[in-house]
Amino acid sequence: MIRYPNGKSYQSALIEKKTSDKQLKKKTVDFAKRGMSLEQELNIANEYYLARGLAVIHKKPTPINIVHVHYPKRSAAVIKEAYFQTPSTTDYNGLYNGHYLDFEAKETRLKTAFPLTNFHNHQIQHMVHIKKLGGICFVIVRFSALERTFLLDADIVIRFWLAKETDGRKSIPLTCFESEGTEIRSIGYPTLNYLTTVQQIYFS
Amino acid sequence: MIRYPNGKSYQSALIEKKTSDKQLKKKTVDFAKRGMSLEQELNIANEYYLARGLAVIHKKPTPINIVHVHYPKRSAAVIKEAYFQTPSTTDYNGLYNGHYLDFEAKETRLKTAFPLTNFHNHQIQHMVHIKKLGGICFVIVRFSALERTFLLDADIVIRFWLAKETDGRKSIPLTCFESEGTEIRSIGYPTLNYLTTVQQIYFS
Repeated sequence: MIRYPNGKSYQSALIEKKTSDKQLKKKTVDFAKRGMSLEQELNIANEYYLARGLAVIHKKPTPINIVHVHYPKRSAAVIKEAYFQTPSTTDYNGLYNGHYLDFEAKETRLKTAFPLTNFHNHQIQHMVHIKKLGGICFVIVRFSALERTFLLDADIVIRFWLAKETDGRKSIPLTCFESEGTEIRSIGYPTLNYLTTVQQIYFS
Repeated sequence: MIRYPNGKSYQSALIEKKTSDKQLKKKTVDFAKRGMSLEQELNIANEYYLARGLAVIHKKPTPINIVHVHYPKRSAAVIKEAYFQTPSTTDYNGLYNGHYLDFEAKETRLKTAFPLTNFHNHQIQHMVHIKKLGGICFVIVRFSALERTFLLDADIVIRFWLAKETDGRKSIPLTCFESEGTEIRSIGYPTLNYLTTVQQIYFS
């Protein structure tokens, strides 16, 4: 993992790059399902669930450390200097079926495994806390080159995270997603109807 | 009112219990006579709950719309232009006692009523959604001049919000907090032990 002299990870610097990539994509592939980012599909799904009164799930804002704000007289405050912070929790949480639900969503272009470097230590610790207190906690991982999206319970992610210290494996193989996870296969709308998968795994 | 995100809360909670207890005690001593803000007290309470494995409750980062980011070659990405966004949810949510818990925290210097302008329409809508889906939802309001802090169920806030269209009342009177809410009176540590009040109201 590359770290800047100030101790910040290279990854946090990439957050905004991702966003700008996404914005470019938006312009080119407005209507095609192919090319929509996982985040975009999750947003659409969450809006749908909210509108139908099925669930209240939101993506948390990106944590930012604000250093300098300018207050012009007749317009909105402008943040002039701020830095990306490493998230201390997962990106998504909310309420479904009377239960607390918490997850992280990630994409990879790799075809055979998902690198654990995609998670921060704090996020794994957060998952440990949620599982201990009886919350529903998982990750949604998309292998974009394969066009396959999986839901994997946090316990399995935590197991791999702890094992990497001893066995040195730095990723979760696709075969693990296939055997221990559940592929999210949606027909109709919303495209990524992940709560149907959640319902199957945790409520039946 | 502009609030800056506080990224420190989670980290210290992850440290070993003894250490984190020490830290927390230090903090109380440091701030004890100075009149801590409601947000500071909530952060301390949430760190304490996390360290003790009682609850996982976090303040959401302030939502920000990023317009321009600069990428220096050898240091972290700098946000050069960004604007504060109106939050679409409440500030705090998490997991307690196996239940989804969601709340907004506000302070006022007024002595007889709490103005409804402190809430955004989206936040009230969010409360409506959470209540409908069976989540625990409330507001914590501090009358700082009176040094009194109340917990008021979201249903009552929603009632006042809807009524302001018809009866024109633009605030919730202190007497309502006294009669329909519950004052958070904490003895010992943490100073604002609001989950004891939550336990009384929703679990007994």
